[in-house]
Amino acid sequence: MKLRDATKRRKIISMYRKDLSAIDCSTARALDQVGEWWSLLIVRECTLGTKRFDEFQRRLDIARNVLTNRLNHLCETGIMDKVPVGDSGRRFEYRLTPKGEALYPVLVALMQWGDKWASPNGQGGPIQLVENSTGKPVTPVGPRAEGGPVLTFRDVRLQPAPWASDYTRGLIDKRNQAILGEPDTEEEKE
Amino acid sequence: MKLRDATKRRKIISMYRKDLSAIDCSTARALDQVGEWWSLLIVRECTLGTKRFDEFQRRLDIARNVLTNRLNHLCETGIMDKVPVGDSGRRFEYRLTPKGEALYPVLVALMQWGDKWASPNGQGGPIQLVENSTGKPVTPVGPRAEGGPVLTFRDVRLQPAPWASDYTRGLIDKRNQAILGEPDTEEEKE
Repeated sequence: MKLRDATKRRKIISMYRKDLSAIDCSTARALDQVGEWWSLLIVRECTLGTKRFDEFQRRLDIARNVLTNRLNHLCETGIMDKVPVGDSGRRFEYRLTPKGEALYPVLVALMQWGDKWASPNGQGGPIQLVENSTGKPVTPVGPRAEGGPVLTFRDVRLQPAPWASDYTRGLIDKRNQAILGEPDTEEEKE
Repeated sequence: MKLRDATKRRKIISMYRKDLSAIDCSTARALDQVGEWWSLLIVRECTLGTKRFDEFQRRLDIARNVLTNRLNHLCETGIMDKVPVGDSGRRFEYRLTPKGEALYPVLVALMQWGDKWASPNGQGGPIQLVENSTGKPVTPVGPRAEGGPVLTFRDVRLQPAPWASDYTRGLIDKRNQAILGEPDTEEEKE
């Protein structure tokens, strides 16, 4: 497991030196921290009220050494905190930090996708999400302009941040041309 | 790689027999199909205009056998299509299916999280997303009730779908009590 993590990290680092480094590397960095499915399932357990090692272990049916490894990694990256509880000093709870809580949109996006595209009976998942205070259902998660519908990647243009390098700017131009068929080139559509 | 996939699948299947099976298994199933970080990076490449095997290979700096394995998996699960192009019958392009395109919200959620929580310089990612037709910036992705702000998991109540089992209903009740401190039990807050 350790070895695998090291390999992953080396790969991520080598990726940073390629195209990927420049174009939207936030996704790659995010996956470097949580792109291992146990990590996200552990974070999700926290949003369901799970706090103790044994609870995680039982609910996820995960090997204890793997769970220990994953929890340590999540604490190291600042996604979870290990907090002593009680007076004995030997009992602990795991809690999401603000960085960990901020992963909720990723979990809901995955859940909604699974409801629609990976439902075994074709009728969707067994759980619906509603706003607690109003009882209103949660709408589909996705990129939107203020007040608009969910956009696909074909509706979205990439724009360089003010601090983007010339290299990044070049990649962004190429991408926008490839997806949106934007100016400069006068290529005909097939 | 094959072995690892088989192991993952066995674990997922055994998970379905535990708590996880019932409570919100759409997330687990989604991760079973795309919860391997190369898969999501390959899907992301498609949203950036990448189509050919050699382009994926160069941009992701990924070993050819791993890339072949991942592309085959993505085609098997219906996330991508391998489409012959040209007359020779020997050139192919990989394209997202509607199921694959529907992963865009997951990618944007990961990117936005990475911008905020995994940015090396603390100033956010190098790329901003805007709606192509209006130039309006994309707002934060996350669960919302119609017209409202992004909700945290503490604002969201789980509700059983009409076809949810009694077992699922029980788990949902427990979760809502744990997170929202909801009725039934009159436990005092710490």
